[in-house]
Amino acid sequence: MGAVLEKVDAWKLIQEEITDKNNRQTESIMSLGNGYMGARGNYEEKYSGNTLKGTYFAGVWVPDRTRVGWWKNGYPKYYGKVINAPDFLSFSLSVGGKEVDLHSADMPSFYREVDMKSGVMRREMTLETELGTFKVESERFFSIVEKPICVMRYAVHNISLQGELTIKTGISANVFNTDANYGEQFWKDVETKERKNSLYLSAMTKENEFDIKRYRVGIHAAVSSTGEGNCTIQNENGEVCKIFRRTFRTGGECLTIEKIVSVVTTRDYPEAELEKKGQEALEGAVEKGSALLEAEQKAAWERRWEMCDVAIQGDIPAQQGIRFNLFQLLSTYDGEDERLNIGPKGFTGEKYGGAAYYDTEGYCFPMYLSIAGPQVARSLLLFRYNMLERAKENAGKIGMKGAFYPMVTFNGEECHNEWEITFEELHRNAAMAYAIYCYTVYTGDESYCREYGIHVLIEIARFWASRCNYQTEKDKYMLIGVSAPNEYENNINNNWLTNYMAKWCIEYALECADRYDYTLMEEERSHMEEIAAKMYLNMDEETGFIMQQDGFLDKELLPVSSIPPEELPLCKHWSWDRILRSCFIKQADVILAFYYFPERFTKKQKKVNFEFYEPMTVHESSLSPSMYSIAASGYGNKEAAYRLYQRAARLDLDDMNCDTEDGLHITSMAGSWLAIVNGFAGMQYHNGYLSFEPCCPEKWECVTCRMNYRGRILSISFDTDRFCLRVLEGDDIVFQVCGREYECRQGCEKTIALS
Amino acid sequence: MGAVLEKVDAWKLIQEEITDKNNRQTESIMSLGNGYMGARGNYEEKYSGNTLKGTYFAGVWVPDRTRVGWWKNGYPKYYGKVINAPDFLSFSLSVGGKEVDLHSADMPSFYREVDMKSGVMRREMTLETELGTFKVESERFFSIVEKPICVMRYAVHNISLQGELTIKTGISANVFNTDANYGEQFWKDVETKERKNSLYLSAMTKENEFDIKRYRVGIHAAVSSTGEGNCTIQNENGEVCKIFRRTFRTGGECLTIEKIVSVVTTRDYPEAELEKKGQEALEGAVEKGSALLEAEQKAAWERRWEMCDVAIQGDIPAQQGIRFNLFQLLSTYDGEDERLNIGPKGFTGEKYGGAAYYDTEGYCFPMYLSIAGPQVARSLLLFRYNMLERAKENAGKIGMKGAFYPMVTFNGEECHNEWEITFEELHRNAAMAYAIYCYTVYTGDESYCREYGIHVLIEIARFWASRCNYQTEKDKYMLIGVSAPNEYENNINNNWLTNYMAKWCIEYALECADRYDYTLMEEERSHMEEIAAKMYLNMDEETGFIMQQDGFLDKELLPVSSIPPEELPLCKHWSWDRILRSCFIKQADVILAFYYFPERFTKKQKKVNFEFYEPMTVHESSLSPSMYSIAASGYGNKEAAYRLYQRAARLDLDDMNCDTEDGLHITSMAGSWLAIVNGFAGMQYHNGYLSFEPCCPEKWECVTCRMNYRGRILSISFDTDRFCLRVLEGDDIVFQVCGREYECRQGCEKTIALS
Repeated sequence: MGAVLEKVDAWKLIQEEITDKNNRQTESIMSLGNGYMGARGNYEEKYSGNTLKGTYFAGVWVPDRTRVGWWKNGYPKYYGKVINAPDFLSFSLSVGGKEVDLHSADMPSFYREVDMKSGVMRREMTLETELGTFKVESERFFSIVEKPICVMRYAVHNISLQGELTIKTGISANVFNTDANYGEQFWKDVETKERKNSLYLSAMTKENEFDIKRYRVGIHAAVSSTGEGNCTIQNENGEVCKIFRRTFRTGGECLTIEKIVSVVTTRDYPEAELEKKGQEALEGAVEKGSALLEAEQKAAWERRWEMCDVAIQGDIPAQQGIRFNLFQLLSTYDGEDERLNIGPKGFTGEKYGGAAYYDTEGYCFPMYLSIAGPQVARSLLLFRYNMLERAKENAGKIGMKGAFYPMVTFNGEECHNEWEITFEELHRNAAMAYAIYCYTVYTGDESYCREYGIHVLIEIARFWASRCNYQTEKDKYMLIGVSAPNEYENNINNNWLTNYMAKWCIEYALECADRYDYTLMEEERSHMEEIAAKMYLNMDEETGFIMQQDGFLDKELLPVSSIPPEELPLCKHWSWDRILRSCFIKQADVILAFYYFPERFTKKQKKVNFEFYEPMTVHESSLSPSMYSIAASGYGNKEAAYRLYQRAARLDLDDMNCDTEDGLHITSMAGSWLAIVNGFAGMQYHNGYLSFEPCCPEKWECVTCRMNYRGRILSISFDTDRFCLRVLEGDDIVFQVCGREYECRQGCEKTIALS
Repeated sequence: MGAVLEKVDAWKLIQEEITDKNNRQTESIMSLGNGYMGARGNYEEKYSGNTLKGTYFAGVWVPDRTRVGWWKNGYPKYYGKVINAPDFLSFSLSVGGKEVDLHSADMPSFYREVDMKSGVMRREMTLETELGTFKVESERFFSIVEKPICVMRYAVHNISLQGELTIKTGISANVFNTDANYGEQFWKDVETKERKNSLYLSAMTKENEFDIKRYRVGIHAAVSSTGEGNCTIQNENGEVCKIFRRTFRTGGECLTIEKIVSVVTTRDYPEAELEKKGQEALEGAVEKGSALLEAEQKAAWERRWEMCDVAIQGDIPAQQGIRFNLFQLLSTYDGEDERLNIGPKGFTGEKYGGAAYYDTEGYCFPMYLSIAGPQVARSLLLFRYNMLERAKENAGKIGMKGAFYPMVTFNGEECHNEWEITFEELHRNAAMAYAIYCYTVYTGDESYCREYGIHVLIEIARFWASRCNYQTEKDKYMLIGVSAPNEYENNINNNWLTNYMAKWCIEYALECADRYDYTLMEEERSHMEEIAAKMYLNMDEETGFIMQQDGFLDKELLPVSSIPPEELPLCKHWSWDRILRSCFIKQADVILAFYYFPERFTKKQKKVNFEFYEPMTVHESSLSPSMYSIAASGYGNKEAAYRLYQRAARLDLDDMNCDTEDGLHITSMAGSWLAIVNGFAGMQYHNGYLSFEPCCPEKWECVTCRMNYRGRILSISFDTDRFCLRVLEGDDIVFQVCGREYECRQGCEKTIALS
C-alpha cells in the first residue's frame, strides 16, 4: 500500500527507479493495450527479481479443469483462463557474453514513462558494466489504429563501452501462466519459421475435454537494425529470434533495433490463412513505418481523449487517477469487437480469468454509454443477448426456470470455479436487466428493448420468480441461501439488495411486457405480480435503516478502526470462517441501491445506511469505494465522498488493496468515473431527461467532462459554486439542476449558480 | 440401493454370484481386517469390471496437498490420505497362457462367504475354459492373534482341464489410489528381493512438504505349493512373485498354494530392522502353520463374540445387520494400539481419509466403553488428550482461544481440506468433552478426568467462550457462522444443537474444575458462567419445538416424500446451493441432543421435534438413522424406531445411501448398537446407576447382549413384555427399569415384567 510511483503527473505515469519490492505493481501500472492485445509493463531485458511476465490476446483462452479437495455438485467443470501469450516483447541484452539482469545491474540513471495522452511507453536508462557504460532507450506501443500491430524500438547509445554487445529478440512460446494450478504449459503445437523479412511463430492453445474451441495464434515480427554489426537467426525449441552483435569501441556509437509485430488468431481467420493474413498485416505496417504508426497512434488517442477526458483542476492525484482509469479502460475495451467484453484485469494480469463479469453491466456500462455512445453500449447488451440460451441452461443447473447469467464467462457458460459464487451470487442477474433499463432510459431508444432486451428481461424475471419461496407466516416471498455483493458473507437469507433487485427486475419486465406486447400467460403474470408485491424487504420505515441480511444485527458490530492494522487486508490475514462471521463488509451492498436507483431513496435513508455500514466496510473489493462515494455525494457528505473517490480513483496507483501486483482492477475503474458523474455531478436520467445535483469537493477548482446524450455531445463543468452545461453538438436541451429546470440551446452554454 | 447380497444369514455374508453392477458394493461388504491391516473383498484373480482394489495398513498415510480453484485462508494445507498398500492378495490365474478374467469368465458355479463367527473368507467356484473345466477354492484371513499375519490358500481342483495352468502370486507395489487427485503413486523407493524361503518387498510412502513422517513397510511372503509342476520367480518393476506352472491332464489333479504374509512398518520398528522383524514374524507364522493359525483365529473371534454379540431373535435381517456392524467395527479397531483410532472407512476404502473423526467420541465411544471395557475407552480418550496442544494451535488458526479439535486427523493436526467443515463444524469439539463425561459417569472412575480430562474440558470451554459473541439487544450469547451436524446447511447462525452443547461443555468444565480443584481466574470463571447462563437457545417453551437454526422456518418446508425418487440421494442429483437452501436435512441435528442427554428432554419434546424434523430428513449421512431411531424409542414410537434401526443396521448391506461401493461406513455402524442399547433397551447411566426403559420392536422375539459395567459383566435381554438382567461377573447391582428400582445379585438374574 502507498503510491507505487513516486511522482504524480496529470498525464503521465512516471517511474524514476527500479524498486524490486514494487516491481510487479509497477509492471501492472505500466501496462499497455489496444483492446485486441496488450501487455504488462515488463522490462525488455531479463529481470530476475519480483516479476510477472504477461502478454495477452483478447478472447484467446483455455478452460482449466476445476480440481477441488471435495467435489460438490455445482462446481463448474472448468475455470476459463486468460493465458500468457507467446513473448514478443523481450530483448535480451548481453555485454561481453554476459546477460544483463536489470535486477542486479548498475544503473546510474533510469527513467520510464507511459504517456497516457498517446498510449506510448518510453524508457531511458544508463547501464554501467565491467566493460563500460552505455545508454539504452526503448519505446513500445500497441497501435489502436492497426489493431494487430505492436511497435517497438530498442536503441543502445555507447558512452564508454569497449567490447561486444549482443541483443537477442524474437518470439518465444516458452511462457507459463503463473496461476496455472498444475504448472502445465498452455501453448502447444508450436511452429517457428524464418521468412525472408520476418520471423514467424505459431502456436495453439492446449487440448481440452470441454468442447471448447482451441485457438491458434500467428505472430510475425519484422526486426531490423541500423548501425553496424552482424545479425544471425536462431530457430529452436519453440523460439525464433534474431541475434544482433556489435563491438563497441568509442562513445557515440549506436545500435538501434526496430521491431514491428503482427498478431493474428483463428478468432478472425481460418487456420489455413493465418500465416498469410499475419504476413499481410505485418507488411502493411512495415510499409507505413514506425514513425507514421506512432503519429497515427498519437492522433487517435487525442481524438479519444477529446470525448472521454475528465479534467479536474486543483488536484493532480485525483486528476491522474481518473485519467489512468480511463486510459486503462479504453486500452482494454473500445467496443469495436462485439464478441469481446471487458475483462476484469484487461491485459494486465492473469487473475480472475474469464472475460465478462457483472462489473460490465453494473459499472462499466453507464460510462461507455455516456462516453463511447449508444452503439458500443448496444454491442455490450448484445453480448448478453446472444448468450441467453446458455443462461437458461445455467438456471436449469440449479433447478430453476428462466435465465441465470453466469458470474464469469467467455462464451456464455459459467467458467468460474466456486459454487458459492457462481450459484449463489444472484444479484448479477439484476445487473443484466439494469443495463437494458439504463440503455433505454438514457438513450430514449426503445428499439433494443423491444426487439432483444424484452426476452432477456422476461427470462430473468422468470428466474427470480422460481428462485423465491413463499413464507406463509410472514406472507412474504424470500430468497434463501444467497451470496451478495458483499462477498464476506456466504449463503445468507434475504440479502436486502438481492431481494430489492429481484422485485425491481420482475416489475420492470412486466412493465416492458406491457409496453412491447410480450405475451405472458395470465397465471405467470399474476404470480410474478404477487411476488413483486410481497417481496420481503427489511427496511425500518421510520429510520430508513436497511438490514443487509437476516441476522446481521446478531453479529458483533465493530468498526474497521478496531482491527489491528497488521491484520488488514482481512482476506490475507484472517481465516475465511472468521471473515464470514464478522460484521466486516467487503464491498458496497445495501449501498449499491443508492447508485442503481438514486431517485428512489431520500437523503435521510442514504445517510443512515451510509453511516451504519461504511465504518464496517473494509473495501477489499475494488468495486466498493466508488459506490460509497456516490452514496455520500447523494446526501451531501463531501468529505466522505472525496475520500472514497480518491480510494476508487487511485486504487491501483496507490495499491490500496495490496494486490495491484496481480494486475489492475480494470472494470472497477469505471467506478471512479461514476463517482464523478453520478456522484459529484449528481447526474440522473431516469425520468427521461438529464438532471444534476452537484456536490463538488472543496479542493477541486473545476471538473469538466463530456457526454454523449441522445444525439448530442454535451460538456459539463462544475465547481462548488456553479454548474455549467454546453451543447457542443446536437439539439437544444432541457435539463434540471438541483430540482429546477433549465434550457440550453444548440452550441450554447448555460451556467447556473449553486446555492 | 437394495440388498447387495441376495441371501440373508444370521452369521454369514453369502455371495452366490458375481454381478458387475454390485461388484464394488460386494467387495466393500466382504472386507476383512484385524485392526492392524485389512482389505476389501477383492477377488484373487483379475477382474476387469467394476472394482476398487484396496488393502490398507492402519496408521500408514500420506498428506496430499490441498488444491482448490480459489484459495481461501483457512483451507488446511493437506488432506491426510489412507493409501492403498502394496498388493499381496492377488493370484493371477492363466489357462493355456491366457489370463482368466472373472469379469468375462464362464463360471457354472460361484460361492463366497465371510464367516463372521471366525473372520475367515472362503470361496468356491467352477471355471469353464476352452481347455476344460476346473474348480478353484480360496480362503483368506487376517489373524487377530498374530496381527502382522495374513494367511491365504488357493487351490485348483481339476475336472476336465487339459493343458497348462499358471498361477502367479507375490507382492506388488504397482498400486494406485483411486482418490488421489492427480494420479500420483504414493509408494516410492520400492525394493524387491527373493530370499531363501520367501519374497520380500519394501516401499516407502512418498515424500511430502509438510514435515509428515514417511513410512516404510516391509512385506514378506512365504509361498509354497503342494502338487506337481514347476515354480519360477519373477522379480522386476516393483513386483516380486512366484509363478507356478502345471499341466493338467485328468480330473482329480490338484494344485494348492499356501501363502503366508507378514507386514511390518516403521510405525513399529526402526527402518534398519524392518526386514529382519518382518522375517521373524513370517518365520513364526510359518512354523505355526496355517491350520493352527486358523484355529487360533476361530477361537479368538469366538471369545470376542461371547462378550460383544447382540442376539436378536425373530428377525434375521436385523440380526445380520448388527452382527455385520460389530464384525466390521472390531475388525477395524480393537483398542490394542493406542496410537490408532477408528477410521471412518476402516480397511474397506480410501474415501474420507484421516483416522479420527468425532464419530469416535460421538458414536463409537459408548459402545466400546460397554463392550470392550474401560481400558480401551481410556485409550481412545488419551488419543485426544495427547493431541491437546495441536487442538490449541487449531483454535489459534481461527483467532480463538482454548482447544479446537480437528474434524479429521491422524496426528492431531487438521487433515481434511474444506474450510466450511474444518473451521465451522464446531459441535465436534463438544463430542470430545462428551466422551470424557461418558467415561466418568459410566465407569464411576474419576481418575481419568482428574488427571487428564479436566485439561481437555477447560480448553474446550475456553474455545466456546471465545467463539461466542454477545448480542446486546437480546442479552444473549450467540454462535454465528457455524456448520452443524446437518451438513446440508453451511455457515448458519445459532444452530441450536451447537449452542446447547457449548453451554453444556462450559457448565461441565466448570463443575469439574470445582470437583478437581482446577484453578481458574475469577474473571474467566464468571465470564464463562455468564455465557452458559445467557446462551441463546431457541426452544418454544410451550410446545417444546426447537428451531434448528435461525431462519429455518423461512425455508420452503416440504417432506422428503415430495422429492421425485430419481432425485435421491440429493447429494448426487442436486447442486450444492439447492441442497443448502432447501429444508432437507442430511442427518440428525436437533435430534442428537436426545441421544446425548436423554434424561433432559421430555417425551413430548422428543415427539414434537422428531415429528417435525424426521419427515424432512434424507438420512444421507450414515450417522443419521440410528439417532432418529433412539429419539423415536425415547417417546415410544416403536414403528419409527424399528424402521430407522433397520436403516442404520443394514445401511451398507442394503446400500441405502448408494455409496457402499466406496467402502463401509464403519464408525456410524456403532449407531446400530446404540439404537438397540440406548434406544430399544432405553439404557441410561447419567445418574450414576444403570436404568432401562425398554421399547422392543413387536417383531423381535428377544434381544440379548452383554455389557461391561463397573467391574461387572452383565447380560441383558428383553422383549416386548419383559426385561431381564443377569450379573455374569462382579458385584450385586441396583438398577432401574421404567423408573422403578431393582436389585440383582452376583451370579443371578432379575426378570421384570413390562406393563
